[in-house]
Amino acid sequence: MVTLLTDFGTRDHFAGVLQGAILSVCPAAKIVEITHEVTAFDILEGAFLLAQSWRYFPNGTVHLAVVDPGVGTNRRPMIVEAGGHFFVGPDNGLFSMLYLEEEHTVRHASDERFFRHPVSATFHGRDVFAPLAGHLACGVSPAELGSLIDDYMRLPIEKPVRTARRGWTGAVLKIDRFGNMITNFRADEFARVHQQPFEVLAGLQAIEKVEKNYASAAPGEIFFIEGSSGYFEIAASQASAAKLLGCAVGAPIELRLL
Amino acid sequence: MVTLLTDFGTRDHFAGVLQGAILSVCPAAKIVEITHEVTAFDILEGAFLLAQSWRYFPNGTVHLAVVDPGVGTNRRPMIVEAGGHFFVGPDNGLFSMLYLEEEHTVRHASDERFFRHPVSATFHGRDVFAPLAGHLACGVSPAELGSLIDDYMRLPIEKPVRTARRGWTGAVLKIDRFGNMITNFRADEFARVHQQPFEVLAGLQAIEKVEKNYASAAPGEIFFIEGSSGYFEIAASQASAAKLLGCAVGAPIELRLL
Amino acid sequence: MVTLLTDFGTRDHFAGVLQGAILSVCPAAKIVEITHEVTAFDILEGAFLLAQSWRYFPNGTVHLAVVDPGVGTNRRPMIVEAGGHFFVGPDNGLFSMLYLEEEHTVRHASDERFFRHPVSATFHGRDVFAPLAGHLACGVSPAELGSLIDDYMRLPIEKPVRTARRGWTGAVLKIDRFGNMITNFRADEFARVHQQPFEVLAGLQAIEKVEKNYASAAPGEIFFIEGSSGYFEIAASQASAAKLLGCAVGAPIELRLL
Repeated sequence: MVTLLTDFGTRDHFAGVLQGAILSVCPAAKIVEITHEVTAFDILEGAFLLAQSWRYFPNGTVHLAVVDPGVGTNRRPMIVEAGGHFFVGPDNGLFSMLYLEEEHTVRHASDERFFRHPVSATFHGRDVFAPLAGHLACGVSPAELGSLIDDYMRLPIEKPVRTARRGWTGAVLKIDRFGNMITNFRADEFARVHQQPFEVLAGLQAIEKVEKNYASAAPGEIFFIEGSSGYFEIAASQASAAKLLGCAVGAPIELRLL
Repeated sequence: MVTLLTDFGTRDHFAGVLQGAILSVCPAAKIVEITHEVTAFDILEGAFLLAQSWRYFPNGTVHLAVVDPGVGTNRRPMIVEAGGHFFVGPDNGLFSMLYLEEEHTVRHASDERFFRHPVSATFHGRDVFAPLAGHLACGVSPAELGSLIDDYMRLPIEKPVRTARRGWTGAVLKIDRFGNMITNFRADEFARVHQQPFEVLAGLQAIEKVEKNYASAAPGEIFFIEGSSGYFEIAASQASAAKLLGCAVGAPIELRLL
Repeated sequence: MVTLLTDFGTRDHFAGVLQGAILSVCPAAKIVEITHEVTAFDILEGAFLLAQSWRYFPNGTVHLAVVDPGVGTNRRPMIVEAGGHFFVGPDNGLFSMLYLEEEHTVRHASDERFFRHPVSATFHGRDVFAPLAGHLACGVSPAELGSLIDDYMRLPIEKPVRTARRGWTGAVLKIDRFGNMITNFRADEFARVHQQPFEVLAGLQAIEKVEKNYASAAPGEIFFIEGSSGYFEIAASQASAAKLLGCAVGAPIELRLL
């Protein structure tokens, strides 16, 4: 099984070609497209979506992730093993959230015999990463593809910063299609908001309610909620909280326990 | 075989995770994505798209439909059997058009052993519906998943209303990507428009021609046509009828036989 | 294996129904969606995307392409064999780029026993092309589906025109999701730009640099580059060249060797 996570979009031939290149190596592969709509070049968004997805697939799944503004430069193709899954992609930080959550080993996939030739300078998804994913899916072991490295790139993943005795400043990690704002306040670390009064400041508004599900508030009301992602979200019942608050990814979120 | 019909969009991890959750239960399942672009929370649009799709799949197919503004409330997860196919989704009316067309039995999927645990309050697609679809696809029978119910929700599906001896007022059910306006005038019930003069009023315009195919009219001309959906459509040759007429879903359509 | 390339979009039931219709004929078929986002009715864009995709799939793949403004008229359904692959679609020029590149034979798929009945006048994707693709995928030979023809439609594919001793006027074939402008200057025919000074005029700007990859220029700088498509592209590092230059598909591109 191979999953795909890219910023290729679905209007071009890229996503289809990627699948062809996998299936040419491993015709039996079962391919699942997680998304091709990562914002172009947005490595952190890719890292978040990957961290949200991979563990729901069966053990042994190969996750192919390509958000690769540096394609054709000497950034390395990598194979990561973590949590019983395999990950293939460029060494540019795309796996940074995964590294925080799981024990992992990282290899530089340096053996060019496993690439598609000639290797273009602009489409390593097709020529490098897809063939690697195909070989892994058909049973080639990571050790055959390259050697262990430990100087791979890790991007800093912003966590809420304590700014007062009972106050933290976090940020919006992602806005989903429903306009729910996924924050970087982890549900397990800030479980106290379920028990005690609190105030969340987002945009120009103060939020003081935590709800169990999206439908329990009045339509349009804005509230805090423990999302399925493992993070607290700011949501609005049947409306886009992001639009109501005028917030985008990266917007600061203040939490104060009262 | 499992089909997917959701309002999850394709920019987030939701659609991918849904597939992972199915495949974790039933790795052999073959998944077909009908669409994830149902307008967010639009149960009636989901009902229409489902009614248009399911019968083109092989007997025994499991159709997983999730448009679920009430996720996390006590609306029930359901298994519907109809026409030799299986349907999984929330009890919120999403199967209302199917009920009109086919004999059916409905079960409340109450046995939580078939869910993914812990069950989140905000992503029952992943934790409830996908596992149910996976179990059905791998041969668990509906009767094992829950008991028959008959108080499931049916949304009223608007039909054309007779407003004169030879006049009806209907509505636009759906506008497709080409701008064709699918009305709720059934092709079989209003077959008379093929034989006799008629007038259709839509937006500010009167349409008096029925065409056999989209290409037979002059470019930009607006006409009535028996669509592949089983309903009459208002279409324009190589142009968007909806844009030309300024009509949206729900717009009234008058039909008068002359 | 069956690939799909259509202008159906992903908001309607069309793309899902197409897959159902294939799988009803050939349940074992493995389906890969290249794209459903060809600009509506844009046969040339479809021709380009198909030419970019098919060869990356295994031999014997069936490529189903439906961009079909003339659906329901008497344009013929066709089966093309080329390069060890099969192609199914309407006789409207959709395979024109393929014809330029590969030896091919073309058949009129006239045997209606292989269609789905009743055949609608507006959705031949479902009723004609998908069943044909299904039969091919499950081993029916093209010769069983219809007879050879040689009067099939070929659209003129514009090539750069020599407009001076050392000057050519070409055009933008496609703008990809990253805003890269794929021109019709073939990389092999114009390889000289790698060795000698040149000037490319696009929009109101002159481009004099050729880069090896998208990341080697300064952010926002515009350059010429040999794309993975086999054509030269005009690109900008981490920005949309098309937006920076204000160019759309069809825009003229001048090349002068200095």
